[in-house]
Amino acid sequence: MSITPIEIQCLDKGFVRLIDVMGDDNSIVQAARVSYGTGTKRLSEDRGLIRYLLRHQHTTPFEMVEFKFHIKLPIFIARQWIRHRTANVNEYSGRYSEMKDEFYVPSLENIRPQSTMNKQGRSDETFPTEQAEAIAEKFAASQDQMYAEYRELLDMGVAREIARINLPVSNYTEWYWKIDLHNLFHFLKLRIDSHAQYEIRVYGEAMASIVKGIVPVAWEAFEDYALHSLQFSRLEAKAIMSMLNELPSDETLAAAGLKGREALEFKDKFNKMKNLK
Amino acid sequence: MSITPIEIQCLDKGFVRLIDVMGDDNSIVQAARVSYGTGTKRLSEDRGLIRYLLRHQHTTPFEMVEFKFHIKLPIFIARQWIRHRTANVNEYSGRYSEMKDEFYVPSLENIRPQSTMNKQGRSDETFPTEQAEAIAEKFAASQDQMYAEYRELLDMGVAREIARINLPVSNYTEWYWKIDLHNLFHFLKLRIDSHAQYEIRVYGEAMASIVKGIVPVAWEAFEDYALHSLQFSRLEAKAIMSMLNELPSDETLAAAGLKGREALEFKDKFNKMKNLK
Amino acid sequence: MSITPIEIQCLDKGFVRLIDVMGDDNSIVQAARVSYGTGTKRLSEDRGLIRYLLRHQHTTPFEMVEFKFHIKLPIFIARQWIRHRTANVNEYSGRYSEMKDEFYVPSLENIRPQSTMNKQGRSDETFPTEQAEAIAEKFAASQDQMYAEYRELLDMGVAREIARINLPVSNYTEWYWKIDLHNLFHFLKLRIDSHAQYEIRVYGEAMASIVKGIVPVAWEAFEDYALHSLQFSRLEAKAIMSMLNELPSDETLAAAGLKGREALEFKDKFNKMKNLK
Amino acid sequence: MSITPIEIQCLDKGFVRLIDVMGDDNSIVQAARVSYGTGTKRLSEDRGLIRYLLRHQHTTPFEMVEFKFHIKLPIFIARQWIRHRTANVNEYSGRYSEMKDEFYVPSLENIRPQSTMNKQGRSDETFPTEQAEAIAEKFAASQDQMYAEYRELLDMGVAREIARINLPVSNYTEWYWKIDLHNLFHFLKLRIDSHAQYEIRVYGEAMASIVKGIVPVAWEAFEDYALHSLQFSRLEAKAIMSMLNELPSDETLAAAGLKGREALEFKDKFNKMKNLK
Repeated sequence: MSITPIEIQCLDKGFVRLIDVMGDDNSIVQAARVSYGTGTKRLSEDRGLIRYLLRHQHTTPFEMVEFKFHIKLPIFIARQWIRHRTANVNEYSGRYSEMKDEFYVPSLENIRPQSTMNKQGRSDETFPTEQAEAIAEKFAASQDQMYAEYRELLDMGVAREIARINLPVSNYTEWYWKIDLHNLFHFLKLRIDSHAQYEIRVYGEAMASIVKGIVPVAWEAFEDYALHSLQFSRLEAKAIMSMLNELPSDETLAAAGLKGREALEFKDKFNKMKNLK
Repeated sequence: MSITPIEIQCLDKGFVRLIDVMGDDNSIVQAARVSYGTGTKRLSEDRGLIRYLLRHQHTTPFEMVEFKFHIKLPIFIARQWIRHRTANVNEYSGRYSEMKDEFYVPSLENIRPQSTMNKQGRSDETFPTEQAEAIAEKFAASQDQMYAEYRELLDMGVAREIARINLPVSNYTEWYWKIDLHNLFHFLKLRIDSHAQYEIRVYGEAMASIVKGIVPVAWEAFEDYALHSLQFSRLEAKAIMSMLNELPSDETLAAAGLKGREALEFKDKFNKMKNLK
Repeated sequence: MSITPIEIQCLDKGFVRLIDVMGDDNSIVQAARVSYGTGTKRLSEDRGLIRYLLRHQHTTPFEMVEFKFHIKLPIFIARQWIRHRTANVNEYSGRYSEMKDEFYVPSLENIRPQSTMNKQGRSDETFPTEQAEAIAEKFAASQDQMYAEYRELLDMGVAREIARINLPVSNYTEWYWKIDLHNLFHFLKLRIDSHAQYEIRVYGEAMASIVKGIVPVAWEAFEDYALHSLQFSRLEAKAIMSMLNELPSDETLAAAGLKGREALEFKDKFNKMKNLK
Repeated sequence: MSITPIEIQCLDKGFVRLIDVMGDDNSIVQAARVSYGTGTKRLSEDRGLIRYLLRHQHTTPFEMVEFKFHIKLPIFIARQWIRHRTANVNEYSGRYSEMKDEFYVPSLENIRPQSTMNKQGRSDETFPTEQAEAIAEKFAASQDQMYAEYRELLDMGVAREIARINLPVSNYTEWYWKIDLHNLFHFLKLRIDSHAQYEIRVYGEAMASIVKGIVPVAWEAFEDYALHSLQFSRLEAKAIMSMLNELPSDETLAAAGLKGREALEFKDKFNKMKNLK
């Protein structure tokens, strides 16, 4: 497929580049209609069908769209990323080829203190500018030194696979990454989230902006039913119900944008909540 | 591992039998502590940790528990079941061995009309008893006939792989099925659900009752945060918020069972809802 | 991608239809060059690179090509097919929609006796024509009867998901099936093989002929190094070596088509065999 | 299951520790007998059945045995390892917890020149001892420096997820890794191989020695039919056949250890080779 390559710069030296796509919103509809046969006639409108599928977690039609990206990213992000197993990957190999002299240095506003609330994240506060500058300079200086040592080992003839062992995890690597839309949505839900590390969120948002342009209807459904959905535990639902005495009126629902089938489904859910022990 | 085999009868001739288990609630905790290292000290209590993990979709520790079942089930259920790909399967082969003379005949109360509301399900109504009986008898008679024809072909020496092609999908098959706890939870969430076909729900509930006894803490967390959780779309959350003026008081939360960390998380979620566009 | 749909009839009423493709031989090369960076310069020729990759089981670049098929096939074949888990599937649903009145009836030459050599297969012999005709007619008659009973249940208002339980596994179903080239090669190696059931082989060969036209270089490599390769166990290799006293000459190798890098690799393998215990 | 933990030291500071096992050789037989039903009677002996299954790539019964390991390994090895996607992993998190002051320093004999034959490997030659010592000392000194810088950042209050970005890929990490026997065999075939990087081979061999003790019969079959098997391309098979005029005699086969069913299968293969174009 001749895709005009879309490339988005990420962090200081990385990028996300769309290489190829198979399918679009229509492919989701087309696959669903195989499954449901004449059963989809009632959902005659494509947009309605896509939203219905995503709302009810009929996820297989979303697997029928496939994306291939070329990505350049620091190794420590690659290590988080690769935990998503349902994807195809071809990574640059430090055994075959020389690693490049490119390392991630965080911008000053991204050098932050440890969060005291969140064991796994950084605080919203920042360091004084001079301190942040000093840290950034130190990062860069050590990266230069480690790369110089790497080069020296290569020049001595040391095998690439050994020479590279002291390169920092801030070193950039590259890969081709191919994934279907359902699994990409899952990746994005986890990696665009505020709990994800900032540096992977940047890549998530870059891919999101590309995907949105290719499957706009599916993307909107993903935002409404997954990305910006809220999940309440059994106890939380109970707490909310204790404050709500009656079913929202049709006017209230319509004001929030809920009508037709979605309004009916909401009423069902509301009644389900009423009956929670 | 010497497990006392647990067997639960399902439908008229099927069963779920636990063959082996690797791990229990402790294995989840143990795996999580590898990931979080000293980071788990604050979550000093095992139950709290398991609930925290499930609530925040840190799913990998749940993959560290593995179950192996021997299952006997009708072919049309096997075809729904096998769509869950992250599992290991060894099925009885109709090419190697003769299919057995065992077929599913629904009980009278499970012979129901097509639902008019739900394209994919049966109604809550039933048929008059005599009509249901006639249908059940017809099912059984045709199964007998088809099996007799199968036997006749085998007696003529026809290859098993060809002789079996007219056996109905109500024919029972068997398999060994091995799956980790995270993927089993996903299976159960979909297959215990009221939208799943009754006949697979029976198997889901049988496995649920077995699993509950082996990982009681994880199971309770699964019920609270997944099985009986409610997911609200962006629009639904908006509708609910338009009816709730203020944050539930600590008393209201406590009355619903929310306290400590979970109460704090609920308040966060509530504020997040307030800010939804 | 606007692919001119390629459709191949399979069995009496089935088909394989190519719906979409992502990539071609170049995509394999392109992905490999990301992995090996400048390391691929020596393998300057694309054909050589593709063959090298397949020969050495560097399989990930082959995952970068994706195929989507629409397939119509009998249920008993669908059940063998679905065991290949690394693929995406959307199948026609007998819960949502009515199953169609289409069943597989084997051609006369495919109604064969059980093989006495092969527990799982049919013999090379055939039945006398009249006997085969009688069997085929019986198959068709029972299929008609079972379908009539299904229709009758639908007409009585029985839920589709229950009405269909006595439909034979010869009933045709349909699905969209999406898979990457590496996993498709694996599928084809197993399902084109003479041990596979004839009816699935027909589909395998149909897909093979389509794939061959789209990735001709990869296909040729697949034939040479996988499909028509021979694997010898440790003992078998020993037996062969006991009959071969010396390394084949370069002339012998060239006569078989082995030269350059492949001839060198063969010599390595030969020496490895010499050293087997 | 109460397994006496088996631990094997790997490299200078790593280890492989068996945490749990589900099943043994009998579990493979048990699962196969579900598939083949009475069809396995002819293969009455368990050892024969296991060997038959592996020889004919009936791989699913091997998926019924599951291993869980605790592994401590350098990050650059973890990055090769994780490419095997069909496994469960819980890794130590540098976001939650502080990375430890442990780094891999290759032993002197493992500091080698780049291979001139093999783009991705190291040579069989070594460096002069003093040179190797100097390199090893430099590795260690830079690791100390990088860790000191990491500690300094932590002491300044920098978030762990940022502070760690300059830690070298020689830093040790840990994980729990759970995999079934079929996929473990695949991992081992690739990672025990002489083309794998030495440092991952060490871990492969450690796991091999553990697995061998738990499923001795399956392991022997794996060695005979996979690990020490030889695969010949179509052209290579042709070259060999051009030198072999006649089928090896039964005596020759017996001398190599081939008898009964395996001898018959070899003859089949030989005749298949004869017919290769």
